[in-house]
Amino acid sequence: MDETATRPGRRPGQNKTKAKIIVAAEALFAKEGFDHTTIRAIARQAGVDPALVLHYFDSKQELFIAVMTPPQRMPHKIAKELANGNPETLGLRMATLFVSMLDAKSTNHIVVNVLKAAIRIPGAAVLLKRIMVRPILKAFKESALDHAELRATLAQSQLVGMVMTRYILKVEPLASLPPKELIAYIAPTLQRYLTGDLNVS
Amino acid sequence: MDETATRPGRRPGQNKTKAKIIVAAEALFAKEGFDHTTIRAIARQAGVDPALVLHYFDSKQELFIAVMTPPQRMPHKIAKELANGNPETLGLRMATLFVSMLDAKSTNHIVVNVLKAAIRIPGAAVLLKRIMVRPILKAFKESALDHAELRATLAQSQLVGMVMTRYILKVEPLASLPPKELIAYIAPTLQRYLTGDLNVS
Repeated sequence: MDETATRPGRRPGQNKTKAKIIVAAEALFAKEGFDHTTIRAIARQAGVDPALVLHYFDSKQELFIAVMTPPQRMPHKIAKELANGNPETLGLRMATLFVSMLDAKSTNHIVVNVLKAAIRIPGAAVLLKRIMVRPILKAFKESALDHAELRATLAQSQLVGMVMTRYILKVEPLASLPPKELIAYIAPTLQRYLTGDLNVS
Repeated sequence: MDETATRPGRRPGQNKTKAKIIVAAEALFAKEGFDHTTIRAIARQAGVDPALVLHYFDSKQELFIAVMTPPQRMPHKIAKELANGNPETLGLRMATLFVSMLDAKSTNHIVVNVLKAAIRIPGAAVLLKRIMVRPILKAFKESALDHAELRATLAQSQLVGMVMTRYILKVEPLASLPPKELIAYIAPTLQRYLTGDLNVS
């Protein structure tokens, strides 16, 4: 809903202001997490009035979803890497991709913050699907595999559990496993969910 | 640490008061979740002064862990059901047990609340291990299986992901699958993690 388009006071600088708010919010959400970031702190960082933040975004939730959504680099990159290659190694490629993404400091916080937020913000579950389910569905588009949505969400369940156990709850020995070893354990699970015989009744 | 034992003002009624606080906290945590339960509300429900709650428990976190810990019925029940039976159906029994527990209203909130709390309270990750990892280790005790801790945490990763995807994020079609179907999908994963050849290097 773009209310700004119908407002009489619309000025050319508005897109710039909105962008400034998103950049500030992105930095704060990444650094402080969803819970500890306030509209007030985002406004301060962006150098605008808190009321202006709420003029563009109805709530912190809506701003969070907007922040996590626009780049689209991550889902695109994931979809590309999953789509290119042998379907028989899809599980291995998916496990490798997500473990690398989570072991890298620059991308870890994105997945971890989205997951943590998704637990309390119903709207943010969609972001998780965007990273995990949609790239799989895209990769499936070319193949004739049945039950694509079911397969993708089963794979998401193992990925989410891996992220939770290793990177959020940090349960040992899983938390300290060498990436290669962890990938070897979960890849067959993903492969079975994605392309195996599920005997769907 | 039982400070009360050395306090001069100890009265016989103290255990009763502590029990009243735990009962009140249990009810409120279950109903409102960890975040929305306050020490003040627990004190009100228990009919005691908030300062008395903090006399027994240093923090809301500590009280939460105490509340989730004492019954021990759930971990015992899980350990018993996992230990009795053919090792070749361990994955199936574990999947059936957890899906039933989570589909039942009376036990769903315990697992869901522990999981939600574990994300923000480092101490609560231990509660999740108590429900998921320890019963497996107990079931393994009799068998000669190697890498028991690794196997148990791998199984926990699939269980946690299943709880998150189906019961917390409610991602479709996983959220609405008939229990029997969901069990059939995840049981082979658990079985492989628990007793399969993991090729540990």
